[in-house]
Amino acid sequence: MGSKVRIGITGYGNLGRGVQSAIKQNEDMELVAVFSRRDPVSVDVGDPAVKVLSVEDVEQYKDEIDVMILCGGSATDLPEQGPEFAKLFNTIDSFDTHAKIPEYFESVDASAKASGKVSIISVGWDPGLFSLNRLFGEAVLPEGATYTFWGKGLSQGHSDAIRRINGVKAGVQYTIPSEEAMNRVRNGENPELTTREKHLRECYVVAEEGADKAEIEKTIKTMPNYFADYDTNVTFITEEEMKANHSAMPHGGFVIRSGKTGEDTNQIIEYSLNLGSNPEFTSSVLVAYARAAHRMNKDGQAGAKTVFDVAPGLLSPKSAAQLREELL
Amino acid sequence: MGSKVRIGITGYGNLGRGVQSAIKQNEDMELVAVFSRRDPVSVDVGDPAVKVLSVEDVEQYKDEIDVMILCGGSATDLPEQGPEFAKLFNTIDSFDTHAKIPEYFESVDASAKASGKVSIISVGWDPGLFSLNRLFGEAVLPEGATYTFWGKGLSQGHSDAIRRINGVKAGVQYTIPSEEAMNRVRNGENPELTTREKHLRECYVVAEEGADKAEIEKTIKTMPNYFADYDTNVTFITEEEMKANHSAMPHGGFVIRSGKTGEDTNQIIEYSLNLGSNPEFTSSVLVAYARAAHRMNKDGQAGAKTVFDVAPGLLSPKSAAQLREELL
Repeated sequence: MGSKVRIGITGYGNLGRGVQSAIKQNEDMELVAVFSRRDPVSVDVGDPAVKVLSVEDVEQYKDEIDVMILCGGSATDLPEQGPEFAKLFNTIDSFDTHAKIPEYFESVDASAKASGKVSIISVGWDPGLFSLNRLFGEAVLPEGATYTFWGKGLSQGHSDAIRRINGVKAGVQYTIPSEEAMNRVRNGENPELTTREKHLRECYVVAEEGADKAEIEKTIKTMPNYFADYDTNVTFITEEEMKANHSAMPHGGFVIRSGKTGEDTNQIIEYSLNLGSNPEFTSSVLVAYARAAHRMNKDGQAGAKTVFDVAPGLLSPKSAAQLREELL
Repeated sequence: MGSKVRIGITGYGNLGRGVQSAIKQNEDMELVAVFSRRDPVSVDVGDPAVKVLSVEDVEQYKDEIDVMILCGGSATDLPEQGPEFAKLFNTIDSFDTHAKIPEYFESVDASAKASGKVSIISVGWDPGLFSLNRLFGEAVLPEGATYTFWGKGLSQGHSDAIRRINGVKAGVQYTIPSEEAMNRVRNGENPELTTREKHLRECYVVAEEGADKAEIEKTIKTMPNYFADYDTNVTFITEEEMKANHSAMPHGGFVIRSGKTGEDTNQIIEYSLNLGSNPEFTSSVLVAYARAAHRMNKDGQAGAKTVFDVAPGLLSPKSAAQLREELL
């Protein structure tokens, strides 16, 4: 197989740690360095073989890293880092502000074309694997409808909203896809469904001592935008239960394409993810696409790409012949 | 968009008819001609705009067809037609003899490289979309196991075996995935499962008048290879029920990847198809890949390809910018 794909990580939060962990599962890859905006001395990556460096010094590592995985957030980190890093490295990121993807793509594309690098943007599961399944669904079944359901999953924004309520000590919110709505889709009914009709909201709350639980529950259930228009359940639990049962970051969801062929034949394609850890899974997808970015660049390609542009075989460490023999 | 992709069909059975029907759902494609080994006059394609021609004359249509979709069988038709037609056309086929794929690939590849055409082999859902999901699963979750379950679906070979039994007037057999086995996989147990443990067999039989039903049932349930090692149900029905309820060709199945990330986090990816008609769905997949073959060839590519080599965006009539905006 020759030498390993040399990976750099920029940003060491949940996603960066997930990437570090995922690289260990791929024998053809190695983690060279983690770049952080914090003082490198303060960042413990738990592995003496991995350099921790200041993001200021990144340019010096231009020839030592094959692919840089950008693990920052979409709000402020990536709009700046994406186009900057594409001047120096092949990059992978998980930019997920859907409405701004076209603009972000253009800005990264300009840098990557100029530097001759490949930058695959918006990688992960949504955008990412879910996007691919939306595409396959409508390409294969042009007459039909596509439904995306999210959950069961922890929603950071909704959990924060609960925690801001008076008398709440801790709280988490899970988005749950409506079984009833999913079954209507699976039955080929092609219903018109709003995001609201597709999802329920399940809240677990630790109340402060002496707090008015009925009042907290009412405040949650009537909160505009977040909860008022949804079926919302509120369950009060102890602080111990919160720690024991609600510390993970599960997520997942469903992409269902319901289409017709021939005279009036129902055809259903369903893709689903049931993820014990959202950031660890997203990281695993980023790492597989890093392999593809490296190969595409070695093959002479340059510019911004998305999951739609990547031939699936490039994601696997196996050769094309091996894939045909083992997986086709 | 410019001119339409001009499609030819070779072989006019269930699959050929499905392709004809699928082309009508894609505005950027048109069916030019159907080629048959039968006397063209005897083949009714139900559309005066579509030429029916002898497969002997195919070379004359070399410049009038952008992609030829080969709708013959894998046992005898494709091993001959695949390499022959790749000398003249971009081709798509659904070659599905898994063990012979490497050999078939080589023979088609030699022809297609010589002619400068693109031939995408083994397209459909298994091999095809299921293969892609096996690949994505292990690329994203390298530590884990992949499970393919088939059904609920009509099995031609097992139905034939029932119909050969004395006293049987008509019979169909459905392969049913075992819910118990699927749930063990979904729970992250990573069980070792044989094909037998994963599937049940459901048989519907019309007995001839006066036939010994108990004897028929016993003959089915004890038939070596086909039924003896499976949980097999036999239900006797009337000829009318057979026609009314068992004339369609439903199929489908599941590809489940169960993997671990991080310390010991379960991650499950599940892909499933619930198909009202197996040949119509397979045909729809073939047509989407015909679009990709045409584009890849216009882009200068040549040789045999599989679904692993095709960037997903090429399957859609939408532009890359539109895909990023609408589906990412």
